Amino acid sequence: MAEEKTAENVVFVGVKPVMNYVLAVITQFNEGANEVTLKARGRAISRAVDAAEIIRNRFLQGVAVRNIKIGTEEIQAESRVSNVSTIEIVLGKGA
Amino acid sequence: MAEEKTAENVVFVGVKPVMNYVLAVITQFNEGANEVTLKARGRAISRAVDAAEIIRNRFLQGVAVRNIKIGTEEIQAESRVSNVSTIEIVLGKGA
Repeated sequence: MAEEKTAENVVFVGVKPVMNYVLAVITQFNEGANEVTLKARGRAISRAVDAAEIIRNRFLQGVAVRNIKIGTEEIQAESRVSNVSTIEIVLGKGA
Repeated sequence: MAEEKTAENVVFVGVKPVMNYVLAVITQFNEGANEVTLKARGRAISRAVDAAEIIRNRFLQGVAVRNIKIGTEEIQAESRVSNVSTIEIVLGKGA
């Protein structure tokens, strides 16, 4: 009844230094999340992968990649529509 | 006996325009491959995702993403070792 966990904990990866996102994910795990999802699009996709790898290899030994999805979003940019790729990397506790 | 297919067909994604890699994958499927893997590292990861999405959405309706793996490689760059993230996107025929 008093279920307060959100269904998914999401960290959006953008143009900041990668360690900002690493820290955001670690904070969510430390606050009790069992699963945290990194989301990014366009050029930030590489940074999301970097963040996932740094978390997995350096900081949280018990955290593994549970799922990776890629997709496409339409972006309205100055009166024309362009497509941008997206990624979702789900990190979870337990191997 | 006369098995001539290689176990895996791989396209390495680098700094060229994304359509080069799209075309390379389409060629491999048209030559009879059932599975083609896009591999990239560092900033080219975003381009590999773009290529996979363009192939899936625009060119090859029967092709789906079968698996996505991320990893880390050590790169020897001017007398010091640095880590670079990698991605492997496996595309396969059939849903």
